[in-house]
Order: sequence, then C-alpha cells, then structure tokens
Amino acid sequence: MGIVVQKYGGSSVADAQSIKRVAQRIVAARKAGNDVVVIVSAMGDTTDELLDLAHQVSPLPTGRELDMLLTAGERISMALLAMAIGNLGQEARSFTGSQAGVITDSTHGKAKIIDVTPGRIEHALEEGAIAIVAGFQGVSQTSKDITTLGRGGSDTTAVALAAALEADVCEIYTDVDGIFTADPRIVPTARRIPELSYEETLEMAAAGAKILHLRCVEYARRHSMPIHVRSSFSTKSGTWVVEAPEEKPMEQAIISGVAHDRSEAKITVVGVPDKVGEAAAIFEVLADSQINIDMIVQNVSAAATALTDISFTLPLADGQTAMTALARLKDQVGYDQLLYDDGVGKVSLIGAGMRSHPGITARFFKSIADAGVNIEMISTSEIRISVVVNEDQIDDAVAAAHAAFDLDSDEVEAVVYGGTGR
Amino acid sequence: MGIVVQKYGGSSVADAQSIKRVAQRIVAARKAGNDVVVIVSAMGDTTDELLDLAHQVSPLPTGRELDMLLTAGERISMALLAMAIGNLGQEARSFTGSQAGVITDSTHGKAKIIDVTPGRIEHALEEGAIAIVAGFQGVSQTSKDITTLGRGGSDTTAVALAAALEADVCEIYTDVDGIFTADPRIVPTARRIPELSYEETLEMAAAGAKILHLRCVEYARRHSMPIHVRSSFSTKSGTWVVEAPEEKPMEQAIISGVAHDRSEAKITVVGVPDKVGEAAAIFEVLADSQINIDMIVQNVSAAATALTDISFTLPLADGQTAMTALARLKDQVGYDQLLYDDGVGKVSLIGAGMRSHPGITARFFKSIADAGVNIEMISTSEIRISVVVNEDQIDDAVAAAHAAFDLDSDEVEAVVYGGTGR
Repeated sequence: MGIVVQKYGGSSVADAQSIKRVAQRIVAARKAGNDVVVIVSAMGDTTDELLDLAHQVSPLPTGRELDMLLTAGERISMALLAMAIGNLGQEARSFTGSQAGVITDSTHGKAKIIDVTPGRIEHALEEGAIAIVAGFQGVSQTSKDITTLGRGGSDTTAVALAAALEADVCEIYTDVDGIFTADPRIVPTARRIPELSYEETLEMAAAGAKILHLRCVEYARRHSMPIHVRSSFSTKSGTWVVEAPEEKPMEQAIISGVAHDRSEAKITVVGVPDKVGEAAAIFEVLADSQINIDMIVQNVSAAATALTDISFTLPLADGQTAMTALARLKDQVGYDQLLYDDGVGKVSLIGAGMRSHPGITARFFKSIADAGVNIEMISTSEIRISVVVNEDQIDDAVAAAHAAFDLDSDEVEAVVYGGTGR
Repeated sequence: MGIVVQKYGGSSVADAQSIKRVAQRIVAARKAGNDVVVIVSAMGDTTDELLDLAHQVSPLPTGRELDMLLTAGERISMALLAMAIGNLGQEARSFTGSQAGVITDSTHGKAKIIDVTPGRIEHALEEGAIAIVAGFQGVSQTSKDITTLGRGGSDTTAVALAAALEADVCEIYTDVDGIFTADPRIVPTARRIPELSYEETLEMAAAGAKILHLRCVEYARRHSMPIHVRSSFSTKSGTWVVEAPEEKPMEQAIISGVAHDRSEAKITVVGVPDKVGEAAAIFEVLADSQINIDMIVQNVSAAATALTDISFTLPLADGQTAMTALARLKDQVGYDQLLYDDGVGKVSLIGAGMRSHPGITARFFKSIADAGVNIEMISTSEIRISVVVNEDQIDDAVAAAHAAFDLDSDEVEAVVYGGTGR
C-alpha cells in the first residue's frame, strides 16, 4: 500500500457541493488502502476576488502582502475539504504550504521550491489521517515569509510533495478525461492519449496545451515521478505522463497530438542593419524587461540594402512593455519601424516519433496549406513543429493537421465535465 | 517615542474604503513618532460567511479545521491593511498570530494565550516598519496547530502583544467615543467616562457593557497595561482604563455607570427539598454541561414544607441545554417543577465609590421602583449592584437609575459613528 498524491484545482472545489463530491473521491482512495495526500487550490473565483480587493486598496501592492493575501484562498478550501472528509468518517488534517514543509526562495509571486521537508505530513499519514495541503504556497527559507509559486503552482506543489514522500503516483484532477490529441472543443473527434513521455508533455505544455504546466512536468521529469492526469468527474483512466527509456520504448503513435496557443502576439522590427550585435541589442533590452520570447525569425537580408527584418512572438500580456522598450532603442539600432500584431496564434505538432520519421514536416505544412491557411512563422524542435498563423484560422489549421495524421477517433471520446473549461 | 498598539475591529475594516481610512489613521500615529503595532479583526461579515460555508460541508466540523478556516479572515484583512499603508508611503508588514509569537494552549475555538514571543514584530519595528498582526489567532505550543482565541480574541491579542512589547498604551478602536455611563441608545444624555479602573471595567463587562471583553481587561490588569478605548471615526480622547492605586485614588464619580444585559434567561427550580447537597447536585450537572451561571437566588424555605425554590440566570444560548440537563435530575433531586423565563434582563450599577458611600443600594432600588419596574432577583459585589427585571422594562430601569445618580449630561455627548452598533 503506497502513497497517492491527488491534486484538485479550483473548479473541482468551487462550492460546498463540489467539495463534498471531491471528499467522497478522496475517501474512496483511502479506503482502497492507500495513504492519501491531497493538494488543493483556492475555490473557484476566490483568487480573482482577493486580487480585486487588493487593487481597491493599492494600485501596486508589495509581493509579500499579495502572497499573504492570496494564500488565504487555499486556507479556506483546504479546511473545508478536511471538514467534508471528516463528515464522511475519515480523519483529515489540513496543512499550509509552510506547515507541509514547502521551502522556497524569496521571490514573492513566483517563488521556486528549493526544498520539501514533509515531516508533519508523514506524521499525519502514520497516524492514519488523510493530509490536505494548500497548493501554490510555501515559506521563504531566509525571511520565513509566506510565498506563492505563481502560475501552475498547485500542480508543482503536488509533484514536489509526491517526490519528497516517494509517492507511487501524482494524480492531477481536471475537468476532462486526460490529455487529448487536440482541444476537443475544436476537434470533437480528438482522442485521449493514454501515455505520454515527459519530453512530449513538456513540448505540448510549451505549445499551449493547458492541462499541465511546464514547470510541474519539469519537476516530475527530474524526479521521475509518474503523473496521472484524469477527470475528477469520472473514474476512467486518463493520461499517464511517465519516463520513456530508450531501451524500452513506449507503444506510441508517431504523433502525439496537435496543440494550439492563442495567447501570443507577434512583433516585427523592420529594416534592421544586418551587422553583428544588432539582434543581440534587441533581445537584450527585451530580456531586461523580463519578457519571455518564444519564436524568432530573421529573414536573410537583401545584399543591396544590407537591411533585415526580425520577427518574434511573445506573450500577449507583454506586448505593450516590449513595444515601449523597443521604441527607446530606435536611435541606437537604427531600424525603420516596429510592427505589432496581436491577431496571431500558434499551432504545433508534437510527437517523439517524428525523430525517426522523415516527411512529417512536409505533411504538416501541406495539410495547413490545403486548409487555406497561410503560415507566417515556423519553428521546430526535435519532437515538435510550430507555425504561427492568423488567429481566425487556428481552428482550421488544428483540425486539418489532426486529420492529416490520422489522429481522429471514430467516436467522440472527450467529455468536458465542468462548466469553466481550462 | 514609545510603542503604540492599536486594535481595529471588523466593522472598522469592513470594506476597501474603511481599510484606506484606517490606514491613514495608522500612518498618522507613525508620523507622530511612535512605533506602531496594529491588531486587526476579519473584515465585516467574513467570519459569518466562513462559518456558513463550514456548516454546508459538515454539521460538526472539528475545532482544528474550523480554526484553520476562520483564521483566513484576518489573513485577508491584515494583508489588505498592510497594502493600503504601503500605498501611503509607509512600510507595513503583516504577521499571522503564529508569526507574531502568540503561543496558546491546544483548546481549539477558545485557546488561552500562554506566551507571547514577538521577536519578528520587534525586528520589523527596528527596521522602521509598521507591524500588522492578525487578531484572534495563535499557534498551539504542543501541536503547532493554528488556534483561535474565541470571543473578544482580537482585544486580548492586542493587550497581550502590548504587554509583551512593553507598549505605552493599547488603543482599542470602536465606533463610539469610549465607554459611556449607559448605552447612549437608551440614555441619550449618557456621559463619556474619561477614566475607569480595571476593577470597574471588569464589573461593567460582566454586567453586559459590550465595549471591552472581560478577558482582555483581566489580561490588562494582570500586566498593568493601560487601555485607551476610542473611536476610529474621531480624534477625541475616549476612555482610559488604568490602575487606581489606593494611595493615589483617581478623581472619579462615586458611580461610574449603568450597564444592562439582554442576553440572559432565568430558570427556577421549584420545590427543592431543603437539605444538604441538593443545590450542589443542581449546579454540578450544569457545570458538567459547560454552562456558566451568573446570578443565583435561593429563598428561605418555609419550615412547614422544608421545600425551597432556587432561581438562577444563565446565557440565553445555554437555556435549552440547561433545561434538558436539569430534567434528567428530577428523580434524583425530587423537585416539583422547572420554570424557564427568557423574557428577563439585567441592570447593574457600577462604581468603585460605592464601597465608601452607604445608601447607594437603597437609592438604586428606589429609582427602579419609582419607574414602576419590579425587581425579580438581586446580586451584589463590592462595587456593583445588579437586578433582574422584566425584559420590556430594562430601558426604563436604566434611564431611572442613570438619572437618580446624576449621571446625565447637559448635552448629547455620544455619537455612534458606524452603522452596525456594538
């Protein structure tokens, strides 16, 4: 009988009714003979409501106080969940991130986990209790202040605790039955992927698939912790994210799936003098502004002009900051103009099998062209091909690629249980 | 340059606007050159809303989880208050009860403070920051679990921290200008009392005056910590609660004020055999049910019957429990019947001066009789006389006694600023 770590997101504990339903599920796992540790997010919209309150009292609250405020959210959901479990006759004890031993650095709002010392969790398990742990939060090693882990924080808490407790599995509960070959809202015939390697899952997360965050998958890979992504509304097996040792390859399709991302914008710096250091200057100023660049394309310059165009994509939210930073650089770099396009999106094909199968790229591009979609930018990794297309054509491109690689199922497999989507 | 501890209740921080107003007040105290420590309660109705959620998931939540849940309330208000202060250009840091070093026993829901180790608060003050501390909460010395202090808990936190920090004063902010000679809603001409001894304040709290809780005054008396009760809506001086050493008596009226209490019920056990041990049996069963008895009256028995009646008052909320417990005792004690009356109230006259002034009791009774009010029970201490009267006649009795002891002011002094009353 091993340790099972389960993580439930905000939509799974949005109200008293949902909390009671999740409690039953947890008790069932305990009664099956497992030691159970549950990581829980704040209820539904709690975090947004708290943020709203914060901005009513201060336009620019400090990270320390914002973290203190937001961590109240999980405190509420975890205590309620423990009560609901207690009401079903099982003992449950809730623990804050600090009590659970989630030690972080001091970067408020996006702290990194530097150690996990789950002594109190182990003690609770030894005494037969179910441990409920607040996701998304920790305590700074140096200042002893409360920190939050930032986006995907609860998933990361779950994997980190699972690794520290040497759990058998880290179950991430969501409102769909796992990871699908494409977003079922766009491709109704998308198939559930039974098994994915960490590598493929990382590429899918980076390509915009919303189920798992990059960071949590990276943590799981580093500690070889199996993740089981599944629905909190059904008992079906979901998607297992596991290691795929080369000597024992998983039975898998050449292509795992098609992901898309609507959250990017494209900036083009037109007429950059084609000489050493110009591109470096541009990306240095963006890095100084803490902006993560995704894809970069530089055209070969026309010899006559010795000018080139540099295009790159970045998170929509950083668009204004980037444009302002680049505008300040105009005299130094001497470019002609800046173009900003927030009407773009990214479509990616992911599959570990493409390593050993030539012709994948050509088939991907042809399927998109046949759907009448123009490709604006291209970027590739060993197991992924991404293209930037017009935002309005994302759905067409996803559907076309999904069909071209025979990913369509004969029946509709995906059921989106919750109302909120992810 | 000393340390000032300020405590703001839930109605003072009910919304973003109130929090910003309180923040200004705190910053003013800091700018006047004080080190400032602020104790804050949960915003407005937060605690009730959380309790409601708890009862939706479990009819009988454990104390541990209830405390975990409720302490989220102060976490929210203290972080918001720290942000609002930051927005005014002063650094403020919020601390949970645990972080502030409020060490308690393990009695969830009504934990007792057993030690205060405010190292982090002192450190924050040394660095020039304002410290915001969650009221009402602490951490268990043995289990390290989060505890709450129960009713009046935030006031007690404030006094306990003030004592541990050797503060100059503990300011308790409320929505009236201090403690009055009577409830201004009943007696519009009630006067603000500039100074009260701990002893008198304790008697007033026990007699139903709602401004300060018994427990916090007891703590202050034990540590000789001056309390200044004042309004968060004005800058007027309020009521100082201080020691009154006998060699240096305070300038004070014979009578401090008239208090009343509508939260009591009266039970009469009729026809109790007048022999040793019968009364003990009755009050033992009540004590076993955790019921606090207030006043007790036993009539002299008629020699012919050797039967007596025992009446006592108790909190209204415990009425049903007490009646059930006593009913089970009928055969053992052999009484005739139980009478229950929830239509009663208590009116009390308090004043350290009555020790040395005979005739006070007579004048008090006469004023009540002249107002046409019947006295049902009487109880006295060295500095207090209390009577139980019909609930509908409380206001008349209070007004009559207030006038009889020349407590009326020439003008209306009391302004109730908030909407909620206390």
